[in-house]
Amino acid sequence: MKYTLIALTLFFSLQSSAQTDAEILKTLYSKSLTEGKSYSWLDHLSNQIGARLSGSLGAEQAVDYTKTEMDKLGFDKVWLQPVVVPRWVRGAPEFAYIETSPGKTISVNICALGGSIATPNAGVKANVVEVKSLHELETLGREKIEGNIVFYNRPMQADLINTFEAYGGCVDQRGYGAREAAKYGAVGVMVRSMNLRLDDFPHTGAMSYGDLPTSQYIPAAAISTNDAEKLSALLSLNKNIKLFFRQNCQQLKDVQSYNVIGEIKGSEFPNEYIVVGGHLDSWDLGDGSHDDGAGCVQSMDALRMLKDIGYKPKRTIRVVLFMNEENGLRGGIEYAKVAKEKRENHIFALESDSGGFTPRGFSFDSSDAFVTKAQQWKSLFEPYNIHLFQKGYGGADIGPLKNETIILAGFVPDSQRYFDHHHAANDALKHINKRE
Amino acid sequence: MKYTLIALTLFFSLQSSAQTDAEILKTLYSKSLTEGKSYSWLDHLSNQIGARLSGSLGAEQAVDYTKTEMDKLGFDKVWLQPVVVPRWVRGAPEFAYIETSPGKTISVNICALGGSIATPNAGVKANVVEVKSLHELETLGREKIEGNIVFYNRPMQADLINTFEAYGGCVDQRGYGAREAAKYGAVGVMVRSMNLRLDDFPHTGAMSYGDLPTSQYIPAAAISTNDAEKLSALLSLNKNIKLFFRQNCQQLKDVQSYNVIGEIKGSEFPNEYIVVGGHLDSWDLGDGSHDDGAGCVQSMDALRMLKDIGYKPKRTIRVVLFMNEENGLRGGIEYAKVAKEKRENHIFALESDSGGFTPRGFSFDSSDAFVTKAQQWKSLFEPYNIHLFQKGYGGADIGPLKNETIILAGFVPDSQRYFDHHHAANDALKHINKRE
Repeated sequence: MKYTLIALTLFFSLQSSAQTDAEILKTLYSKSLTEGKSYSWLDHLSNQIGARLSGSLGAEQAVDYTKTEMDKLGFDKVWLQPVVVPRWVRGAPEFAYIETSPGKTISVNICALGGSIATPNAGVKANVVEVKSLHELETLGREKIEGNIVFYNRPMQADLINTFEAYGGCVDQRGYGAREAAKYGAVGVMVRSMNLRLDDFPHTGAMSYGDLPTSQYIPAAAISTNDAEKLSALLSLNKNIKLFFRQNCQQLKDVQSYNVIGEIKGSEFPNEYIVVGGHLDSWDLGDGSHDDGAGCVQSMDALRMLKDIGYKPKRTIRVVLFMNEENGLRGGIEYAKVAKEKRENHIFALESDSGGFTPRGFSFDSSDAFVTKAQQWKSLFEPYNIHLFQKGYGGADIGPLKNETIILAGFVPDSQRYFDHHHAANDALKHINKRE
Repeated sequence: MKYTLIALTLFFSLQSSAQTDAEILKTLYSKSLTEGKSYSWLDHLSNQIGARLSGSLGAEQAVDYTKTEMDKLGFDKVWLQPVVVPRWVRGAPEFAYIETSPGKTISVNICALGGSIATPNAGVKANVVEVKSLHELETLGREKIEGNIVFYNRPMQADLINTFEAYGGCVDQRGYGAREAAKYGAVGVMVRSMNLRLDDFPHTGAMSYGDLPTSQYIPAAAISTNDAEKLSALLSLNKNIKLFFRQNCQQLKDVQSYNVIGEIKGSEFPNEYIVVGGHLDSWDLGDGSHDDGAGCVQSMDALRMLKDIGYKPKRTIRVVLFMNEENGLRGGIEYAKVAKEKRENHIFALESDSGGFTPRGFSFDSSDAFVTKAQQWKSLFEPYNIHLFQKGYGGADIGPLKNETIILAGFVPDSQRYFDHHHAANDALKHINKRE
């Protein structure tokens, strides 16, 4: 992972002379691979603090820890930017089984989706209607759906090389599945985990009831891919099997939290800002090493190394650790709001929120002209096996900064393994390779 | 891993029209990611058979298994090519400790190097001379070395992006450390494991006594990187600490084994041969999933899929699973010898022996003109994030085929994680991601 963060720093270090750029790049890569700090920071975040869902003790501790670490690095300024965040809690572990006939049950692995309501204390037990899309609900209609649990079972498309594309093609089931099923009188929703692998981990993630009246909210959970396959197979044998699930989550009152920000002041254009960042919050099942502890420590180490090599930027460079990307985006929204109020001219923002894997390149949410310019840097990066300089997505947290001139950029690591871990209990430090 | 093997197949499928090439490529990628067979074959090789050191039962079973599987695929011909291989066995597990003062000991993790002799039954206990290179022995001379254990502790260079380069810069310690230390009267050799990570796994691998008389052979072992650090730290405090180790390995008589070969006959130029392969043998500590089970199953699946899509090659295409790459290369040598005797005109050979990781490209041991030609294929491969088409190494097994005209090629996966597992007990299927 050390080796990715160096790539991040390069956008700040590119000078006029190609020779100098190549030299700075080599120094940064070498420093990162031999004396990077990111992995030990991530070890602390993951193993000493752990999960960092917005509003949780872990999130608070992570704010304190990263602020304290950044204070030690001698940046020009380090501060906390207040953000009020939602607080959703999982409560006691979920419990679920398939009832193949009265008294005969098979346990399955589920987890409540973030933002879902609880089931009644006694749980929900109902017949199951399996669908492959939101659209299929329309076809089935209230008659087939009312009183049942809707089981969304469209898998991620395995033949897409970019796994984020496969995710994008499926995640409507998780995000809007409950809202849509509730309209047809479903009593609950079970969503196949967004995971390309068959395993036993349920993957959580945000869902929304949209503008449904509260009285129509129904509980929504994710089921592991292995158990989704099992449930589907059993349904194909017998439509009358039932699914039981119980979950105890709730939405509590909003609480105070913070974005953590450090900066090196620009020598010539201090009011022009370059941002690099990730999000400090995570889901609650794993320790959030990939999503997005990696992005945070990479960003911190990028600034640390630039300072360490005596780099004096002309523009102000900030590392921003955003709070609440996962279930609200309040940190990103607040950061952009304050930047606008203060008339800070943000010219470039780079987000790392795609996991701590071997770096492949960058995608740019910018003009075609800028992408063409960025592609001229390719030869500088090729010795480090960085090849992708393409038009594409920046990142959720930096999205609210978007205007006509800013360049938003996303760091692109290899995506093949990401969804094995995303939002699940196995998003853990042991699944991060230090060099990657 | 499925996704790598497709890349392998492309060299065979490239047609005259770019449109057709792109379509074939897409079909193969998609088939591989959705219905590839390689992972289930590897599961069997790794978990039902396990380690496959030349001359072992596992190697024999692997020959039978892959022959049987290839027989099912409907190739034009599948056969075993006899190869006599060396048989080195580890015997009872090794045992080692550092003695800091009489009676006070600290256990360390070691393994005998492949080809080493055993220690005497009672083990070897001696003072330790730490060196960073073979050259340093000369400087120290017989006076400092005689009667001691030489501890080679030069780590792999962490700031090299290509980890094979880092391996190449270190492996002389393992290969020739015992031979050189014996010349100065050392009683044993302990080599820091070829591993970029600090952990507790000792990594074995081949060593050679060269032309030393048998009477001068000394036992050689690898020590885990964590324990190498520990031993070095203790030596810096006290030069008088001792190291004890015992190992029970021996070189037995050569035995009969086989290369496993399958082929699809060429329709126009049947005596022109294209080879794709990996090596079926492995070291004995892990199950050899990365080294080189992955290369074998990828090669088999490449041919299976070509047949499956009805591809009729003009030239004969062979999959060759070589025996004895790790400690003798006898399979590669025999294959080339027979090919020469039969006047088979081999024009292209592609080896996959760098692990089952995300594919990055290919390296070519060929004329510059061919490399330039291969680079024209880049745009066909870019949609699959394959970027490297470079001059470089082919592979050990295909090396003996080298002549003035053949193109030798190596498949290049991402190398960051390879040496975490290479020749160690944690080269295991669970460390292979199916998509990668």
